[in-house]
Amino acid sequence: MQKQFDDLLEDKFNIKFNDESLLDEAMTQASYVNEHPGQGLKFYERLEFLGDAVYQLVVSDYIFRRFPELPQGRLTRLRAAMVNEHSFSRFARECHFDKYIRLGKGEEKANARQRDSLLCDIFESFIGAVYLDQGMATVKHFCEIVIFPKLDEGWFDEFFDHKTELQEVVQEDGPVDLDYELVSEDGPDNDRKFKVAVKINGKEMGVGLGHSKKDAEQKAAKKALNELGVSTSIK
Amino acid sequence: MQKQFDDLLEDKFNIKFNDESLLDEAMTQASYVNEHPGQGLKFYERLEFLGDAVYQLVVSDYIFRRFPELPQGRLTRLRAAMVNEHSFSRFARECHFDKYIRLGKGEEKANARQRDSLLCDIFESFIGAVYLDQGMATVKHFCEIVIFPKLDEGWFDEFFDHKTELQEVVQEDGPVDLDYELVSEDGPDNDRKFKVAVKINGKEMGVGLGHSKKDAEQKAAKKALNELGVSTSIK
Repeated sequence: MQKQFDDLLEDKFNIKFNDESLLDEAMTQASYVNEHPGQGLKFYERLEFLGDAVYQLVVSDYIFRRFPELPQGRLTRLRAAMVNEHSFSRFARECHFDKYIRLGKGEEKANARQRDSLLCDIFESFIGAVYLDQGMATVKHFCEIVIFPKLDEGWFDEFFDHKTELQEVVQEDGPVDLDYELVSEDGPDNDRKFKVAVKINGKEMGVGLGHSKKDAEQKAAKKALNELGVSTSIK
Repeated sequence: MQKQFDDLLEDKFNIKFNDESLLDEAMTQASYVNEHPGQGLKFYERLEFLGDAVYQLVVSDYIFRRFPELPQGRLTRLRAAMVNEHSFSRFARECHFDKYIRLGKGEEKANARQRDSLLCDIFESFIGAVYLDQGMATVKHFCEIVIFPKLDEGWFDEFFDHKTELQEVVQEDGPVDLDYELVSEDGPDNDRKFKVAVKINGKEMGVGLGHSKKDAEQKAAKKALNELGVSTSIK
């Protein structure tokens, strides 16, 4: 099992731990330690604390340099979209971390292995372990493979608040009328579709389709941002 | 003015910027840029965004390594005490940053130079500028001079939640009775003094004196932690 994980990390991310016990710590839940007393095992929580700060900086540094014209408010919103429990759990699954978590029997039975909150913690503790064992450059390299390409693939779109973004952009030079109008709503109850138009000072700037009004509004706002030539970081 | 600031940074912190324009950016408020159009000036907000993440990591890394036995919850509370608007503004004043901020005339009149929230922003933007210009090692060195010694001097005590700390510590092995009792309250209205005792399962473990009940409770909790031999990170 351990050997498989080592191979995966080396093949996929070119990461080879010097201190394997750090990797073990990152992948071990307290429930497992409690069931194996006297072995000096450690669980992931301290590494999660550290990894959280490491990841925040790697993401901040990346978007700061990649989008040199993006003002603070928009950088902050973009970071919030990328530093997100749901994103983390998806990354953890994509990297197959779920297979290698060490859990106590009760937690295993309760299917904790597939719990988003646990996968999120493990993703951060893994980052913390890589940072301690290999340094910042390796964390950056890992993020360049796993995280940053997702920005261009639209992964973070659903966490990105295009409406707030649009409001900030259009009001830069003073107040404007920004309205969202429901154009149509149809389809059966279990597959309802909403069409929303966004208007700036009465002029339609984008139309969005979605399974909820909120979703359609976000998509309309995104279209308007594109229309306005605003280089959103999210495609 | 600029020269004075350069000398101060070099003398006190051994920091000499390669790119002076980054330091200018860190110390410049938007109001100043607005009053000097066409000069290509930048204001501090993007650097503040970056500096915030840099500082979080430097502090996290430091306390993670310094307190190898501290569990995640207590690390998180200690970090929260150290990453705090009020602390930041005190650091900024101690480093004399207030003298070197570039403000617009209106903001100068409104005495923004002494506003805690601005000093807090400037402290973070300065950290961001040092990180970009000099790298992480110089930020760490700066924190070793300015921030970390404060931990032992008790600077962060007032932001530290000893009551939560005590509750967590005493309940590690199961539920206990933890009570705070007001022992006395005296003195004139403008200089009222409160004395509070904390009892664990009925046994007095610490007494605290303060100008408010809350303050006295915090101090009692801190005494109890010492009494229990808990190595609080704050002296």
